[in-house]
Amino acid sequence: MQAPSVQRLVTELGRLPGIGQRSAQRLAFHILRTDADVALALADAIREVKEKIGVCEICFNLAEGPHCTICQDERRDAALICVVEEPGDIVPLERTHEYRGRYHVLGGALSPIDGVDPDDLRIAELYARVATPRPGDPDVREVVLATNPTTTGEATALHLAAGLHERAPEVTVSRLASGLPVGSDLEYADEVTLGKALAGRRAV
Amino acid sequence: MQAPSVQRLVTELGRLPGIGQRSAQRLAFHILRTDADVALALADAIREVKEKIGVCEICFNLAEGPHCTICQDERRDAALICVVEEPGDIVPLERTHEYRGRYHVLGGALSPIDGVDPDDLRIAELYARVATPRPGDPDVREVVLATNPTTTGEATALHLAAGLHERAPEVTVSRLASGLPVGSDLEYADEVTLGKALAGRRAV
Repeated sequence: MQAPSVQRLVTELGRLPGIGQRSAQRLAFHILRTDADVALALADAIREVKEKIGVCEICFNLAEGPHCTICQDERRDAALICVVEEPGDIVPLERTHEYRGRYHVLGGALSPIDGVDPDDLRIAELYARVATPRPGDPDVREVVLATNPTTTGEATALHLAAGLHERAPEVTVSRLASGLPVGSDLEYADEVTLGKALAGRRAV
Repeated sequence: MQAPSVQRLVTELGRLPGIGQRSAQRLAFHILRTDADVALALADAIREVKEKIGVCEICFNLAEGPHCTICQDERRDAALICVVEEPGDIVPLERTHEYRGRYHVLGGALSPIDGVDPDDLRIAELYARVATPRPGDPDVREVVLATNPTTTGEATALHLAAGLHERAPEVTVSRLASGLPVGSDLEYADEVTLGKALAGRRAV
């Protein structure tokens, strides 16, 4: 018995990940209550990203125009490439302020069960980047494999490590450390994480 | 270091209630990944509600056009008015399928601390509806006070009950029952709710 346009908004909001029927209802009422400016700014922002955002020709990150903001940044170290599954994985890495190299977005992780083969990811493009730097860029020194610490992410990292060692033995290939999250409690750590933390222990 | 249009979308999504910075980031990446059709349908739905939705002249529910879908429905009992704080409160009441009367949306609850006085709510409009039914509508038989079971909601209900008793002594005024939620556990009930449940106990 809601007005059709309200019902439609609830339906569209409910398609977003993690937004159930009730959250969608709550968000819709918020949008109805809020100033038109703010609500229309959201509508425009959605429209704008879908119009403007494409993929970086170099690293396959999201980009307005041919190159993403990171590849455009001359101060970043082009000899260092961090390989991630999705563009969204770049955000938390950038948030650390610890990484000053470039990225390479695979577009997913290897998963034979889901039919994701090496050809479905930008793996050939990674090998090409490592083999032949763009004019003006230095030779690649290190590739950091930052796929997720999941079954598929680990399998992808192993596959890439083997492929890179074979094609470019002079390039260092590294993997993000697994272990206990900072601020966590040993008592609540799962055994796989704790096992990784033990195996990766360091002298202090 | 994100593209400006992506950053803008994250900012706009982050203005929604219950959506923090990380959820906004996640939703933005979902919108970027999803088909343009689906994303633009959401943008259009937002635009459409802000253009089309106004307020029902009778009950102040959300409406496309002068009257809401409930006030337009001839089968609903116009002699029964359920008073709620916000349009969003109508949704859960309708979901029960127990109520076949009409509504009256106050637009909030009395709260002297926040400067919400009787004049700020549609209280005079409620009294007018009860005193003078619209042509063709029957006299009001009962007003159900369905303001929230909170301090301000209770205060509003008391204020309305007094006002209605004074102006229309022949009209029944009722209040939603307070008590234990169905499926809950006595052990975890707070003492105020349990006190209400005791006070409102019924013979079986």
